[in-house]
Amino acid sequence: MNIAIPIFDQITALDAVGPYEVLSRLPDARVSFIAKEPGVKRTENGMLALVADLALSELPEPDVIVVPGGFGTRALAGDEEMLDWLRHAHEHSMWTTSVCTGSLLLAAAGLLDGVRATTHWLQYDLLPPYGAIPVAERVVREGKIVTAAGVSAGVDMALMLAGEIAGPEWAHGIQVGIEYDPEPPFNGGSPATAPAEIVEFVRARANQLA
Amino acid sequence: MNIAIPIFDQITALDAVGPYEVLSRLPDARVSFIAKEPGVKRTENGMLALVADLALSELPEPDVIVVPGGFGTRALAGDEEMLDWLRHAHEHSMWTTSVCTGSLLLAAAGLLDGVRATTHWLQYDLLPPYGAIPVAERVVREGKIVTAAGVSAGVDMALMLAGEIAGPEWAHGIQVGIEYDPEPPFNGGSPATAPAEIVEFVRARANQLA
Repeated sequence: MNIAIPIFDQITALDAVGPYEVLSRLPDARVSFIAKEPGVKRTENGMLALVADLALSELPEPDVIVVPGGFGTRALAGDEEMLDWLRHAHEHSMWTTSVCTGSLLLAAAGLLDGVRATTHWLQYDLLPPYGAIPVAERVVREGKIVTAAGVSAGVDMALMLAGEIAGPEWAHGIQVGIEYDPEPPFNGGSPATAPAEIVEFVRARANQLA
Repeated sequence: MNIAIPIFDQITALDAVGPYEVLSRLPDARVSFIAKEPGVKRTENGMLALVADLALSELPEPDVIVVPGGFGTRALAGDEEMLDWLRHAHEHSMWTTSVCTGSLLLAAAGLLDGVRATTHWLQYDLLPPYGAIPVAERVVREGKIVTAAGVSAGVDMALMLAGEIAGPEWAHGIQVGIEYDPEPPFNGGSPATAPAEIVEFVRARANQLA
């Protein structure tokens, strides 16, 4: 099973690494980090670099596509090479997925027209120009298209995919393998459940916190 | 605030990237990925590479140390350059922390003698030879030393640290910023709460799942 994670400069690293950490544990899974140009891709803040080992053209028809988010998606939403790759890959994929603002690229490729989808809660406005219908859910499954909410939601999405791909024993095994028994320090990790003043705090510092 | 994450070949990527994603959002935080030799470091399965931008010697006294885990820790537990770096850095740090089997390196550096600490649940035996006292808790805080359980526990640990460093408003803001409102698909993400047959499934496939 070939799992492709396209990466790019100004990526949000956890969007990609959360699903990688889950899906790489599936039997016979091969996760590949791919890019328009192979090589080093830096996060939005410049502090971390991930390596893309392959060019998009070297993996045209993966079984699973996971598109991560980050500010870098804004430039790629107008990049025909990336969008063509997504369109072709989606025709052949078992699962076409995104995390956070990765859904902007699925939308820009025309894959979300009339489709319910999610993204980071601060970025719902990115989707309607492409006909996508933003919804405030953590993981949104519409046929073989699955979109996850902001950053950390990719772990939950990947565990759901793991169950679909290899069955519940494997998925639960992976969950226990990575000790995913979350104990977040605060109740309310979403804008719907967090206190209003925390949501405003995040909005005011969106460039830093989101 | 300088936050140092030492990385190495055969690292578990999420151990490092989870805390990075949280701590890099703190005000005036600078997260640096460092290594004995700067450059590309690959995960245990070879599928992902992270870049170390600095040598250990270039950041001898960070404010916060986060040591990730992975099979690569076994070789480093006998590496005097790494252990000397940890000893010196710990003398000056505000917080000395680990995720998963990263605690093996804190232990091998002599920092956990007589100290309660945790690691991945399959690897508790790594700690007692160095006098550390393994405990089955998700995040273990002993003075300025904080150890986290397997892989995904680094996110919870980092949010706790964020609260200590910058206060609860920032920490909660970061939690909402990364939409950390977990919805794991299975109840029981730890060996204490998962069904016995799932725990055995993971044990039998430990090289793949843990």
